Parts: sequence; C-alpha cells; structure tokens
Amino acid sequence: MSALIGKTGIVVRNIPRAQQAIIDALGRLGVATVHEAQGRKGLLHSAIRPIQQGTSLAGTAVTVLVAPGDNWMFHVAVEQCRPGDLLVVAPSSPCTDGYFGDLLATSLKARGVRALVIEAGIRDSHTLREMGFPVWSKAISAQGTVKETLGSVNLPLVCGGQLVNPGDIVIADDDGVVVVRHDEAEQVLQAASKRADLEEQKRLRLAAGELGLDIYAMRPRLAEKGLRYVDSLIDLDD
Amino acid sequence: MSALIGKTGIVVRNIPRAQQAIIDALGRLGVATVHEAQGRKGLLHSAIRPIQQGTSLAGTAVTVLVAPGDNWMFHVAVEQCRPGDLLVVAPSSPCTDGYFGDLLATSLKARGVRALVIEAGIRDSHTLREMGFPVWSKAISAQGTVKETLGSVNLPLVCGGQLVNPGDIVIADDDGVVVVRHDEAEQVLQAASKRADLEEQKRLRLAAGELGLDIYAMRPRLAEKGLRYVDSLIDLDD
Amino acid sequence: MSALIGKTGIVVRNIPRAQQAIIDALGRLGVATVHEAQGRKGLLHSAIRPIQQGTSLAGTAVTVLVAPGDNWMFHVAVEQCRPGDLLVVAPSSPCTDGYFGDLLATSLKARGVRALVIEAGIRDSHTLREMGFPVWSKAISAQGTVKETLGSVNLPLVCGGQLVNPGDIVIADDDGVVVVRHDEAEQVLQAASKRADLEEQKRLRLAAGELGLDIYAMRPRLAEKGLRYVDSLIDLDD
Amino acid sequence: MSALIGKTGIVVRNIPRAQQAIIDALGRLGVATVHEAQGRKGLLHSAIRPIQQGTSLAGTAVTVLVAPGDNWMFHVAVEQCRPGDLLVVAPSSPCTDGYFGDLLATSLKARGVRALVIEAGIRDSHTLREMGFPVWSKAISAQGTVKETLGSVNLPLVCGGQLVNPGDIVIADDDGVVVVRHDEAEQVLQAASKRADLEEQKRLRLAAGELGLDIYAMRPRLAEKGLRYVDSLIDLDD
Amino acid sequence: MSALIGKTGIVVRNIPRAQQAIIDALGRLGVATVHEAQGRKGLLHSAIRPIQQGTSLAGTAVTVLVAPGDNWMFHVAVEQCRPGDLLVVAPSSPCTDGYFGDLLATSLKARGVRALVIEAGIRDSHTLREMGFPVWSKAISAQGTVKETLGSVNLPLVCGGQLVNPGDIVIADDDGVVVVRHDEAEQVLQAASKRADLEEQKRLRLAAGELGLDIYAMRPRLAEKGLRYVDSLIDLDD
Amino acid sequence: MSALIGKTGIVVRNIPRAQQAIIDALGRLGVATVHEAQGRKGLLHSAIRPIQQGTSLAGTAVTVLVAPGDNWMFHVAVEQCRPGDLLVVAPSSPCTDGYFGDLLATSLKARGVRALVIEAGIRDSHTLREMGFPVWSKAISAQGTVKETLGSVNLPLVCGGQLVNPGDIVIADDDGVVVVRHDEAEQVLQAASKRADLEEQKRLRLAAGELGLDIYAMRPRLAEKGLRYVDSLIDLDD
Repeated sequence: MSALIGKTGIVVRNIPRAQQAIIDALGRLGVATVHEAQGRKGLLHSAIRPIQQGTSLAGTAVTVLVAPGDNWMFHVAVEQCRPGDLLVVAPSSPCTDGYFGDLLATSLKARGVRALVIEAGIRDSHTLREMGFPVWSKAISAQGTVKETLGSVNLPLVCGGQLVNPGDIVIADDDGVVVVRHDEAEQVLQAASKRADLEEQKRLRLAAGELGLDIYAMRPRLAEKGLRYVDSLIDLDD
Repeated sequence: MSALIGKTGIVVRNIPRAQQAIIDALGRLGVATVHEAQGRKGLLHSAIRPIQQGTSLAGTAVTVLVAPGDNWMFHVAVEQCRPGDLLVVAPSSPCTDGYFGDLLATSLKARGVRALVIEAGIRDSHTLREMGFPVWSKAISAQGTVKETLGSVNLPLVCGGQLVNPGDIVIADDDGVVVVRHDEAEQVLQAASKRADLEEQKRLRLAAGELGLDIYAMRPRLAEKGLRYVDSLIDLDD
Repeated sequence: MSALIGKTGIVVRNIPRAQQAIIDALGRLGVATVHEAQGRKGLLHSAIRPIQQGTSLAGTAVTVLVAPGDNWMFHVAVEQCRPGDLLVVAPSSPCTDGYFGDLLATSLKARGVRALVIEAGIRDSHTLREMGFPVWSKAISAQGTVKETLGSVNLPLVCGGQLVNPGDIVIADDDGVVVVRHDEAEQVLQAASKRADLEEQKRLRLAAGELGLDIYAMRPRLAEKGLRYVDSLIDLDD
Repeated sequence: MSALIGKTGIVVRNIPRAQQAIIDALGRLGVATVHEAQGRKGLLHSAIRPIQQGTSLAGTAVTVLVAPGDNWMFHVAVEQCRPGDLLVVAPSSPCTDGYFGDLLATSLKARGVRALVIEAGIRDSHTLREMGFPVWSKAISAQGTVKETLGSVNLPLVCGGQLVNPGDIVIADDDGVVVVRHDEAEQVLQAASKRADLEEQKRLRLAAGELGLDIYAMRPRLAEKGLRYVDSLIDLDD
Repeated sequence: MSALIGKTGIVVRNIPRAQQAIIDALGRLGVATVHEAQGRKGLLHSAIRPIQQGTSLAGTAVTVLVAPGDNWMFHVAVEQCRPGDLLVVAPSSPCTDGYFGDLLATSLKARGVRALVIEAGIRDSHTLREMGFPVWSKAISAQGTVKETLGSVNLPLVCGGQLVNPGDIVIADDDGVVVVRHDEAEQVLQAASKRADLEEQKRLRLAAGELGLDIYAMRPRLAEKGLRYVDSLIDLDD
Repeated sequence: MSALIGKTGIVVRNIPRAQQAIIDALGRLGVATVHEAQGRKGLLHSAIRPIQQGTSLAGTAVTVLVAPGDNWMFHVAVEQCRPGDLLVVAPSSPCTDGYFGDLLATSLKARGVRALVIEAGIRDSHTLREMGFPVWSKAISAQGTVKETLGSVNLPLVCGGQLVNPGDIVIADDDGVVVVRHDEAEQVLQAASKRADLEEQKRLRLAAGELGLDIYAMRPRLAEKGLRYVDSLIDLDD
C-alpha cells in the first residue's frame, strides 16, 4: 500500500468510515488524551495550528495530495466527501500559499464536512471564523493558487510528519491534530475514556494539594537515580 | 527611481494620495480579493501578521526605512503623516526589536494615521489592542531601540518581499497585507468589485450544494490530464 | 556560581523571595517598562509567547532544568513552590514537546503558583486558558514526555537567552517575559515607576498633537547627522 | 501495517533486501534521477543535508525510531544490520541532539553498514568525514543523549516527511535523500536508467547551443497561454 | 515602472548592459566592498547561499519570475541571455523545489551565462560544482517542477528582499549577493576601488599591531558616550 | 555577579586566564568529549556553525556585548586581548549583520587572538578562510554595521544559550562550541582525557565487531523495559 503514497492522478471513491458515535466520542476526549491513549503516536507536528480558538472535533479523513501552489484537487475532493468527513491536505513539496478560502469552505459545509487540516496556507481567515468552518493550517496567506496539475484524492499521504490513510479518524483541537487508524478507533476510544477517568481522579487529589511525588510514588526512584536535596545554593559552593 | 531604494538621510515631504473613497472601498474588499483582482501581485509575505483579529482597512503608504534596533525615523515620519495614512516600515537588515509602542501609536492616532505595517517587532501589544491602533508586524518584543542612525522617510522600499512606494495603497486584514500601486488603484478597485460580485454568485450556488467541478466545468480537463477514478484502494493493488 | 548552570541531580530547597508588594508592583508596570527601567537587560527572546491574551503578572522564579522530552522534574519542583512563585523551565537541549498540561497546572494552582514560563511546549492549552493558569511557552504540542532523567530545581539556568536565578523576579505579559535580579528589584521598581509617570506626561502631549521631534528636541541632532528634506521624489532625480 | 508506525518496544529481525546490484545501480543514478523516474515521490525534505560532499550511494533501510534525546535503540539496531544496509533514524518528536558519533560509526562500519540518514543531530562530524562514514542529518550538535526509553527497530516510520519501510531502498547524495519501495526497485531502476540516457542526449544538444524551447517544442504552448514578447521595458509603459 | 513587478506573461527582449570591464571589476572587488561603496544598499538576504566555495563574480541580471514549483520560464529566459549575463530568479511565493539542474546549466553555459541566483531550490548540486557553474540558492532539493504557468522574463522583481531590474549588475561571492543599479555601476566602481585601497592601508597598520581605537581616533567619542574602564569584575561589586 | 549581564558602558581590563597548556589540551580533545566530561553542560546551540572545516582549538574567552547592527565594541575589545584569547560576541537582540571582516581579523591576529565565536553574522568569509582566522557564527552576511552605541567588554554574557564569563575556556571544532568554567578547567581536562582513553578502547572492540549491546551489557535492561524481538513484520499483524 505504501507504493501509493505520493502517486498522482487517482481518485478513490469509497473509503472506510468508522461509526460516527466513536468518532464523536474521540473528538470530545481531545488530542492530548487520544494521543496518550494510543501509545503516543499519530501526532501531527506542532507547526499545524488552529486559526480559531476553543474548537474540538473529529472526523473521517478524506486525503488530498496537491501540487505546490495548485488547489485543483480540492474541487475533486469535495465530491467525494460525506457528512462527518474532514479534509486532510498535504502539498507534494513545502508551500505556504492560500489554497483554501471561504468559497471552498461554503462548498464543504454544504456537504457536511467538519473541518480542514492542511500542511500549507489558507485565506479568508476572518470569514472562515465567522462562518464557523474550523481550520488547522501551517500558514495564513492570501496568495492565490492555480489549477493545472493533478494530485490525488483518498490515497494515503504524509501530513505534518504522520501517515494519514483515507478513512482514518482525525481529532483536532487547540493543541493540534492527531490521527487514529480506522482499525484502532474502538480500542483507542476505550483506552482514552479510561485515561480521562483516571485523570479526573488525579485532578481532584492534586487540586486538594496532594503532590504528584506522592500520588505517583516517585520519591524512591528519584533517590535511586541520585537526586540530592540541599538547603540553599550556598551549600553547593565548594 | 530604483536607485533611491535603501538610500538614507532623506525625507520626502509630499507624496501622491489616492482619493479616500477609493482607498476605503479597497479596504472593505479585503486582501485576498484585491490581491486576485490585480493579477496576484503585491502580497507581503505571510510572516507579517496582525496583532489583533477582525480588523480590515486600507491607507496611503508613508514609507520608513530604519536601521536595525533604531527607531529614530519614526519620529521624523510622524510629521509627514496625514489623516488616512498608514505607516510601512522596513529595517535595513533583519530585526525583531520592539520599534513601536503605545506612545508612538498615540502620536500617530493624533494625526489620523490608520495603522502600522512593519517587518520587525513592536511592543505594548496589549495597550495597542485596547486603544484600537491596528498593527501588522513580524514579531512582538519589548526590546528597546536607540536613536542614532538616519534612515529615510517616503523613499520606495522593500517590505515583506514587496516594493512599496510612498503613496501606494496598502490593504491589511486577518489574511495579511497587500500593496496596490497608486496609479492602479482605480482599475484594481473596479476589478476587485467585479470579482466580489462574481464570488457572491458562486457562493450561493456552492451553498446550495452545486459542485465546483460543475460550476467551473472542470471535468473534461481533468479527464484530459488523465485523472482516474477507482472504487477503492484495493483496486490499485497490482 | 556559574559552574552550577547545567548541573543535574540537585534540588535547592530555599531561595530568596522579594517582598510580594514589590513583585506585584513590577507586574502591574509590565514587561516593556521594566525592561527599559533596568537598562534594557533581562528580556527573554520573543519566541516565548503567551498562550492567553491580556494577562500581566510577576512572580518569584522557581527554576527547573529538564531533559528533552522528560518532565519528571516538574513534580519535584511543585513541592518547592510557595504562593506567589512562578515556574521557569528550560530543557537541556531544544525541545517542543508538551511538558505541561492541566494536571500539573492544577497542582501548581493548589500551591498558589502564578504562572509557567517554558522554553519548550505545553498541552491542554484550551483547559489552561479556561482554568486561568497563565503560560508563556515556545510551542503548543500534545506530545507526551517521559520520567527517566534527572534535571535540577532551583539552580541558575538560561531560559530564552537570559540567565535566571532562583529567586529572581519574572514579569510576563502580552509582550513577553523579562527577568529582574532579586537584588535589584527595589531599585528597578523605583526606576520603572518614574518612567511610567514620565511616559504618562508624554502621552498627554502626544495625544494633543505635539510631535516627538519637538518634545524630545530631535531636530538639531537630525540636522547635524545630515538629514535632508526634499519636497518630492522628483527632486531627487538627477 | 500503518498501525505499526510510532509503536515502540519492538525489534523486527528479518527484513526484505533487494538485490545488491539493483541497489548499487540506483545509487549511481543519484537522487534527482531516481526521484523523477518514480513519479516524483519519495523525496525526504531538504532540511536533511549531507555532512560531506561528493558522496552518492544507496542501501537497504534499517529503520530506527528513537525517543527525543535518547539513542539507546542505535545499539539495538546495529545487531540487525547486514552489509549493504543503511540506517534511517527518526525521533518521535523534533530533536537536534547529537545521537550518533564516531563510536557508533565504527560499530556500523564493522558490520558493513553504508551510511546514516537521521532527522536529528549527529556529532564527531570531523572524525566521521575522516573515517569515510557518510551521514545525512538535520543538525550537527555535540549534545549527548541518554539510554532510558525504548523505541523500535525495523518498523515503518516517517523520516523527513516520507514513509520509510524496513527493506526499502534509500538513495542519498549531495542533493538529499530519496526512498524507493522494495517492490518497485527494479522498475524504478529501469525507468531511471532510461531517463539518464535521454538526459545524456539532451545534454549534448543543449551543450551545442540548441534551446530547450525548441528541443521540447514549447513555443506553441507558450503562445497559447498568452506569452507576449516586447522589445523593451519602455514598450510596457502606458 | 513598479506596476510591472509581479506581472506575468511578458518577456522583454532587450535590456541595458553595462560595459563588461566595469562589471568584471566589480566582481573582483567582491560583495562586501561593493555593498559598502554604494551606501550599504542592495544586499540580498543571507538565506541565499553559494553552493560552492571560493567563487567571486559579477554579471548582468536577466530576471525571471516563476510560479511555485514551476520552472517553465527558465527555458524562455535562456533565449534572452547573452555572454556575461547572470540569471536572477524569484518565485511568486516561497518555494524550495529544485527548479534548476545540470541540463539547464549546460544550456546557460552554452550561451555564456555566468551564474544563477535564485530565491528557491536547485538540484544536481554535485554536477553543477563539477562543471563549474556557480549557483547561489535558498535550498538544495531534488524536487522536480512542472511547466504549466507563465511567469515573466526581464521585468523588475524582488529577490532576496531587494529589487532587481533587468540590466542591473549582480555581484556574488562567498558572502552572498549584492545588486548595483545599471546607472550607478561606474560611480559605485570608483567608490569601491577607492575603499579597497584605503582598506589595504589600514590592513597594513592593523597587521603591524596598531589599534583601530587609534587609527580611527575612537577614544574621545567612546569617553564622551560614557565608556568606563575598570580593572576587574570585582571592582563592579557594590 | 549576574546583575552585570546585559549591562553596557563598561570594559574590564583584567580577566583570569587558565594555563595555556590546559587550554590547548582541551582544544585537542574537542567539543563532544569535553561536553561529556563536564556533565553535558556548556554547549552553545547548534545554530552557531564554523565557517571553515577541520579546525579544532581552544582559547580564553574575552566577552563582547554589542548592540544590533553596531560593531563599535570590537575595536574596544581588541585592546584587551592577549595571545591565546578567543573573542565571544553576542548582540543584545537577534541580528545577522556582518559585524566582523578581514580588517578586524587582521587586528586580532596581530594580537595573537585565536578565533571568533559570534551569535550574529560575519563577512569576508573567503578571506578569513584564506588567512586562517577561524570563525564560528550564526550567519554570513556582508551587511555593514555602525559605531554609535556602547556595549561592554569582559562582562559575563549569554551567547548561544550559554552563560560565558570572561576568562572561561571556549573549545570549538566542526561540531560547534562548548564553554568550560575557568575554575573547572583542570578537573574537566582530567575527566575528558580519561573519557578519551576509555573511548579508544571501546573503539577497538567495536571495530573488531563486538556489539555495544554486549560491551555495555544492555540486554538485561532492554528486556526488563519490555523490548520484544519478532522475526518479521508479518508476526505483528493481528
């Protein structure tokens, strides 16, 4: 399957889609919890940032490979989207151009698409915020793009340093973006829910003034590693 | 005229100013639309970002060349400003220092200046937002500057990778900054207004669920380029 | 004392703490004013940015050196904190991982810690904003960290290009972060208050339309440096 | 298979290895030609640079996932290497530490390993050049690393923005690094050889003064796109 | 003339060319000296670096504007070049793709073109060094480009933060790249030669152990600014 | 002492200097070994790179704080230098200008200064290499600087993220730059020599084909951490 990464000229019509209830539950748990729950994998690099604040969601990845400065494949991709999907876009080489603006957002919204994740630039950022279409991008730039070169839709691709397959679940919030494999969605959801519950208990204890040193029983291992306490900096002067 | 770029020790008192109505209309149309309407030229690079959100405006460029870490010429520039102007500042070499703060903003505001665009740093960012003086800058830094070295006021300069002449019209919003030549302002306004109208029509059709593929009649050309649709990833395994 | 920078395996229990009234007063004056008042030193570099807007504060530095991708020492540091403290964290080599999230913030808040300044990444950014725990960081990233390698607590360290001693006062606002030496806090406060008063007077004059050129009597020195005024660009064509 | 990306705690002992003759032939053709021949895919991003000049080679990828600032898995990986292999290393989050130096290079050389490609830092760069062990890295840094956290050996990973499977062929030269899928090696070699032959013919014609405009018959299509020739800049002044 | 910057679809056939003797003399003086001699203007930013070491040269700028990831206009530009020219290339938005390789270099060499300066990437870097075709670029990348979108040849453009007109003289060496206006070439050459002579005299005095403090008579002005000499750090402890 | 960091207007005449034999011995051991031997502290960040290859040396730090774009204090510093010294220069805010060229190098060479380490730019790079004056810098840029603003000489400063005191020993080679405290020089030398000897023994064993896994007895601890060996990727498919 990995031979397909980077190929152009192909559109795949059907992709697997996880149950919406699972996807929505992952979206509510958020990026950090899901990332931890699946063994700290799948996190897109931190240069991909939200253009809005306070939005947390998840969707099924429709993947789009585009040429630098060329947004033609967005229009091809729209047709393949269904409600609950989320567009994941990567350029074949680094680019900050504004591939996406309010017209494409209008079109995606009309089809029930939830958000855009793109390792490149977008524009009309004010309007996108006003119309409530969430975006995670590498840049904001009004630079226009052309429609000359084919890319692909729904092939696996690398976005933000992570492999994303069409049909994978993508979770995005103020912390960034994480991808969950389609086949692992259910087990990751269970692990993440469990983790969220455990964290809630710890939060209460920490809020009450207990120390992580004690809750997590760290003192013996710190001592074993040689951690030394001194009363003041002056004690270290020799 | 290009021999003047980078020269120091000169202040030009009079610059051309377009009609305020034209400038204001360009400001309402916004950066992306104006950039497209003038043939995708004039866009400052995307590292110059607004320190506030939701402000869109335009003004006549008063250009200021400054030495690195030296904001002396701001004071010289203030005197040359008139209501409706906008300061465009570039350092003679890369610098992130805080050239500009609330005192200079107070002075510019008193003269009716609309905004600052600077390929360097500014400070007092919270106060600037509170007093409603809009800024587009490369950095926010409290680092102070000196007053020792001459630059220039109202000579042409390069800011954010674009030539800006004194008297050019500068439009700035959440997407960034674009410059329109003084002589082209009227024709760009016409083209931009027309484009905005056309986009409005497309927006309605897209919102109604029509596809860009059909509205723009892209299917034949995509086929000609060889775009291939397959039913699933499995069909590609050979 | 400088031999202690970069050492690991040590926790210092007692650090000097300036009077809370002085610290609070510095926090109200803000980063730019304090930075100026102490001779333009102590400013952390501008890549360390607030994750919230409109918060201005100061606290006593509790310093934490951490290994890349390892947040173990945060838990050790919590125990050393008192109300009014502020955590200053630097990794021993560049790292953008999410060292800090809402659980640690809960723990710090329970001890009265005011904020975190970190030359690395944090996560749970939305929750941190909601719970009102202020952070200045180099990155936002959900990337988890391990607990394997000792760092240090309350040794001097370099954060954002500035030496920070435990007990120094750290001021942070929308402009960034500045450090004031423990021994200089009182004199810096005096100088900063004086400066703020002077600025207030200048603000009134500038708001009334007076020019900085006149208030600061700059014209003679500009002339001496050779500044030349011309009526228009055309006058320069020869 | 993609669920394995980012997993830790696993070492895979056996990987597919293409015929050495094919690998060597790809190495002689070089990165640019191979990249083109396989449809412009597989190129690692340009921040991964050679520490030496004039070396061109290829090898079978042994993949290593490491924690930030932790080079433990290098020692695990050495044992899995055979003559003709090439180590491809990626950290689980961005890191510039010096994971690799002359001791590990000595060990790899003793096992016939050809080179290292790493999206992180290396050290002992002078000795590595002297001993003739080629390296492509993101940074040069003497910063030491620990041995505390498991990664993986011979699982698929993303390095430099490209998926690399264990057993894939990696080609590296002064231009950078490209990966060829194990299953596509033979067909890519054929395509690359053919391309190299064609380029040689073009080179002769270009060297003789023929124009690309004519060799590639570009003039009609340029005209169709509207390219306009004018005699001088002055003709454009209206 | 500035309305032409960023325009596409135009090729200008004739450009002014300074006398070759003047151009060559500027090339021998080098970038730093010429930059100083013309009042410290015209220096391209330092991200544009030579791919070779020890080459110093100058040539007449043939300017080429290209689309991101599209090198079509190189072929159009070749035809406009004459012996002694130097190609100056800028993309219409940031791009690191490998626009240029050994085939285009062969073609340019056949026409007597001296070098390439490009604010983007090149490839075949090893071959370019071997064939002695000098390049200054922002990146080295094997990433291929397409031929779909028109740019322009011999219109003014901004490259590396500087306006370059066709016919301007471009000087490049290990320090970087500087542009001299066509109309100023002669006077800049005179100033640069004079400066080089003066520097030679100073070099002799400095080599003999004289101090710059004395040669340039800096001591009184340093004292006036308040420079204070103390015997040791301890004298500052109060 | 830390209150002196960032102060300006002061020159300290006398600084401690370690024995030349110790300094030279540290220079021969190199950056990576010394960095390890002193507990992995003192390493300047990796953006400070040598402009030459194959040079390894050490010297006594004469520290120079400069204003952005202002190299005046270099001339003041020269007078304070003695044979065996090495200039360590940091700007008070980020700057890439060319502070230093062949004239200053000539002057330093005449006084026996060994090298320059600067967190900013230098120029005349070709001549510096030809005259054999070694430089480690953040940038190469011909951009000229002014002489208007005081900095300091021989006060402690932060360069490349490390505190450097006048009189500290600075070691620099192809890997970068490390600082050793004056008071620790002898003990670091001993530790570094011992480490170099141990490494030599390991090198022989590794060259003979022994594995680090066995030499360092890593297998039990890897097993304890849960490292699992499988025969092939297929065994992981479940």
